[in-house]
Amino acid sequence: MKKLFVIGIGTGNPQHITMQGISALNQTDVVFIPTKGEEKAGLADIRMQICDRYISRAYELVEYPISPRNEATADYTQRVLDWHDLIAESYAQMFARAAADATGALLVWGDPGLYDSTLRILAAVREKAGLDFEIKVIPGITAVQALTAAFGIPLNTIGNPVTITTGRQLARGWPEGADSVVVMLDGRKSYESLDADLHIYWAAYVGMEEELLIQGRLADVRNEISKTRDSARSRHGWIMDIYLLRKAR
Amino acid sequence: MKKLFVIGIGTGNPQHITMQGISALNQTDVVFIPTKGEEKAGLADIRMQICDRYISRAYELVEYPISPRNEATADYTQRVLDWHDLIAESYAQMFARAAADATGALLVWGDPGLYDSTLRILAAVREKAGLDFEIKVIPGITAVQALTAAFGIPLNTIGNPVTITTGRQLARGWPEGADSVVVMLDGRKSYESLDADLHIYWAAYVGMEEELLIQGRLADVRNEISKTRDSARSRHGWIMDIYLLRKAR
Repeated sequence: MKKLFVIGIGTGNPQHITMQGISALNQTDVVFIPTKGEEKAGLADIRMQICDRYISRAYELVEYPISPRNEATADYTQRVLDWHDLIAESYAQMFARAAADATGALLVWGDPGLYDSTLRILAAVREKAGLDFEIKVIPGITAVQALTAAFGIPLNTIGNPVTITTGRQLARGWPEGADSVVVMLDGRKSYESLDADLHIYWAAYVGMEEELLIQGRLADVRNEISKTRDSARSRHGWIMDIYLLRKAR
Repeated sequence: MKKLFVIGIGTGNPQHITMQGISALNQTDVVFIPTKGEEKAGLADIRMQICDRYISRAYELVEYPISPRNEATADYTQRVLDWHDLIAESYAQMFARAAADATGALLVWGDPGLYDSTLRILAAVREKAGLDFEIKVIPGITAVQALTAAFGIPLNTIGNPVTITTGRQLARGWPEGADSVVVMLDGRKSYESLDADLHIYWAAYVGMEEELLIQGRLADVRNEISKTRDSARSRHGWIMDIYLLRKAR
């Protein structure tokens, strides 16, 4: 394989793809799609839909299983690094089977830069497996933009910073001096124990047909969010949610 | 006017537009484009190019002048608010001239949520001018995603937060606990006086043909960045740049 596109596809609306993404897909010989073992089956479907809808040349579709994380490893960073090593091995084998002059593509949820491991894993693949392919990243719509668009609101207040963080980090405390905080990957519902006067803009499956939106003063809506989240998660078998917290002035 | 699309068009590469953006443009009767008084003439050209290339129906193009900020107002927030009021007035007049059942579109650089005033101004237009149109926001590629894509790097380190801030804010100090900080709107070159061991990924005109990229240890590259920035600015008559700072571990 001589070149690999890493294409941000947005957050589940097939129309989130950019013209640049479509152009890259139409220079691609092999599209690699994670399917087997993917609990979030709907996510593989959306990648397939994007290929069906927007690629107008012959291409090969290679499905690959997603390696599971070893939850027995206590340290979070080590657990993630070990998991990346596993994925890197499977990528290396998969890429080595492609033709030497082939161009490949990986379709990444959201944008390849934001809370996504693909670029780190690819660096390891090139280094450890000695594969020397060019990487070209195509930016995508992140859940952050999809969230603020869904509510029709600005991300920041005038001239002020924005912090993007995780539920795990937020549980350690409110970021110093911040008035706008976006939280991703919050399986532990960190919002439940925060300042009741914060305003929350919460979305699940943002951009998708299943999109759920709730906003209001945290004290007033957090129970509703937790109930909605639990029931949607059990209905779909998975959930991806994101929220923006804004400090009252 | 019954409906207004606020469409994020990305950062100057006409291919940054999403399929959702193109779909919205093709439901639009009137596209409003800031031109007269726009010092950054290239930016109006890109909006025109996007309309030419991607709209396949008859539409009206309305050009409007950009109101200047009153730099005599000392307080930053007040200066911005006054400026928004001026723009809101011109929007109100412009929208009132559109047909009652028309759908309009504004094309916003990057994403309408990130360091952009359009949504705040539109809220004022609806409130003060009593115009009751629906607003539909279409998310766009921000300079943040374009920056990390250009360098092929992740925005965050594993599991850690990201702060997006302005040169004005950064001049007040490094955000507490942050290891990845994105700086936008830094006309004052705040990077010149920061910790020499930071790693900087700097881009100007990111995504455009004129794109400039410099990265390295701050101590090693900051003079080069300042020289490159000054000369590009005088060559083009304007500059838009952005950078990511990463703390060494």
